[in-house]
Amino acid sequence: MVSTGTVAVMGAGAWGTALAKVLADAGGEVTLWSRRPEVADQVNRTRYNPDYLPGTLLPAGIRATADAAEALGGATTVLLGVPAQTMRANLEHWGGLLVDGATLVSLAKGIELGTLMRMSQVIVSVTGVDAAQVAVISGPNLASEIADCQPAATVVACSDSGRAVALQRALNSGYFRPYTNADVVGTEVGGACKNVIALACGMAVGVGLGENTAAAIITRGLAEIIRLGIALGGKGATLAGLAGVGDLVATCTSPRSRNRSFGERLGRGETMAAALSARDGHVVEGVTSCESVLALASSYDIEMPLTDAVHRVCHKGLSVDEAIALLLGRSTKPE
Amino acid sequence: MVSTGTVAVMGAGAWGTALAKVLADAGGEVTLWSRRPEVADQVNRTRYNPDYLPGTLLPAGIRATADAAEALGGATTVLLGVPAQTMRANLEHWGGLLVDGATLVSLAKGIELGTLMRMSQVIVSVTGVDAAQVAVISGPNLASEIADCQPAATVVACSDSGRAVALQRALNSGYFRPYTNADVVGTEVGGACKNVIALACGMAVGVGLGENTAAAIITRGLAEIIRLGIALGGKGATLAGLAGVGDLVATCTSPRSRNRSFGERLGRGETMAAALSARDGHVVEGVTSCESVLALASSYDIEMPLTDAVHRVCHKGLSVDEAIALLLGRSTKPE
Repeated sequence: MVSTGTVAVMGAGAWGTALAKVLADAGGEVTLWSRRPEVADQVNRTRYNPDYLPGTLLPAGIRATADAAEALGGATTVLLGVPAQTMRANLEHWGGLLVDGATLVSLAKGIELGTLMRMSQVIVSVTGVDAAQVAVISGPNLASEIADCQPAATVVACSDSGRAVALQRALNSGYFRPYTNADVVGTEVGGACKNVIALACGMAVGVGLGENTAAAIITRGLAEIIRLGIALGGKGATLAGLAGVGDLVATCTSPRSRNRSFGERLGRGETMAAALSARDGHVVEGVTSCESVLALASSYDIEMPLTDAVHRVCHKGLSVDEAIALLLGRSTKPE
Repeated sequence: MVSTGTVAVMGAGAWGTALAKVLADAGGEVTLWSRRPEVADQVNRTRYNPDYLPGTLLPAGIRATADAAEALGGATTVLLGVPAQTMRANLEHWGGLLVDGATLVSLAKGIELGTLMRMSQVIVSVTGVDAAQVAVISGPNLASEIADCQPAATVVACSDSGRAVALQRALNSGYFRPYTNADVVGTEVGGACKNVIALACGMAVGVGLGENTAAAIITRGLAEIIRLGIALGGKGATLAGLAGVGDLVATCTSPRSRNRSFGERLGRGETMAAALSARDGHVVEGVTSCESVLALASSYDIEMPLTDAVHRVCHKGLSVDEAIALLLGRSTKPE
């Protein structure tokens, strides 16, 4: 049986830290790499990461470091918990430090601007590893709830089923239930697109529209995500599952979702500049993703009217009211 | 082109009344039948139906009656807005009054206890009409929001595309967007099953679980609904659409959903008897549906673990905590 061996989690944000806790709770030895030395230091001294996961006592099985070589040395499983648009630059630094044959696991949700690559493609292209070594974890997983040991399910996608099962076991901590899936493409498309639809949902809520509208946006959003996923070689069933519907529903309905909240601000009439400055530098993934997802869809001749509307609001100066009128004005047709 | 002609809406509950308003807003002449003469009288005198749709001024194009013969006489389209378990008895009274060739449209969501028939099957079996005359309307449609003219989308399913398109046009009122679909089975399965999953969601919320859990329940619920729908001859795509995912998401996430609220009471520790008495005689569809849906699934050898758990809580005395432990204790496996 393939084992996950020593695990490195690269990135001590909320999600990286929460997954490090899951791995440690499941019995693993985990090294958590933080870009900022003071975060690593605080985790090691206090077992708390107050900037990203306040209030959560981390298990003793986690050791933090700001030294990538130390984290990656001997790690046969590496979870990559860095923002999508920094994945390439980070991997360029880390490439030489990776253990041969290691499983590289993307936690990032997005499509790279410019190249229009999915994260697993970026990983392969920078490190030169075999695609079968690359896995993706994605699902309806608010980090704060997982840190509280609330029950959650996720997808572990890898074309190599042995690696997928090894990861599933390493993550199976009672409260966290990973389901394996061989469909890396579908899993990544679900994660990359959902933040854009959450922006659209937030805009509708901000304008004062109700739950029927939100449900219709989620459903029509899912339809365009499935179209793109299938065009890229993914499976509809994956997108009807935890990494598609599940993550989309959680992100679109949670008041704690950053992307939905940002959309709400726009819906209430705030300008992009004002809404962005209220974020205080925190990334709103959907604002970037709508651009790369739309470009990717266009290159495959896939229509994504909701993504297009979000893109026009975020980057082309269209008002939210105009965007909604545009969407409602489309002619009725077969589902 | 097929026209919908005069429309009768049989049933002046919230949903029947809201759809009568949609039809009238779209320019139709509508007769709204109410079982209780005082409701019909009040609608005609005041243009309000305060018991079921308080605060909504109904358009002048709606005439109410408590006389079924009057409502059905000349109606070439009949919307059947009665509870699922009373559909058969109502149609037995009305059969002789129906105009030959009329389109009969089910608004009811459920599977008949005992016969395990879908509503369209009940309609065909009682009235002897051709299955192509039977349509179904289903989607994420909270009646109160539609009464407020908030944007909503729905599915109009009929194997006869001419009738589906005629209904689509009759219902197209600007704020209400009907999408046609030939898949009657899938559309009905989505509507019948979603209330059961909403009960499960409510129970999880009542126990104090968070949004990851709710999203996982919705997704795993969708998976079992799709399994059943496909076994009965429906299409997965229908269940990934408005009548599946859309309605499921709205019913599971809305605090105004009766079924979710009922589940929350059980999750907070109320007994079935106490929770039912708090409903004050109002129907909680999921409590009945879990029984007929589970029996139908068993007859096709389909596993529906969430529906089974809800059934055990509602009818076999299982506690909510035991049900959740049961579900979380299932072994992890491929999605």
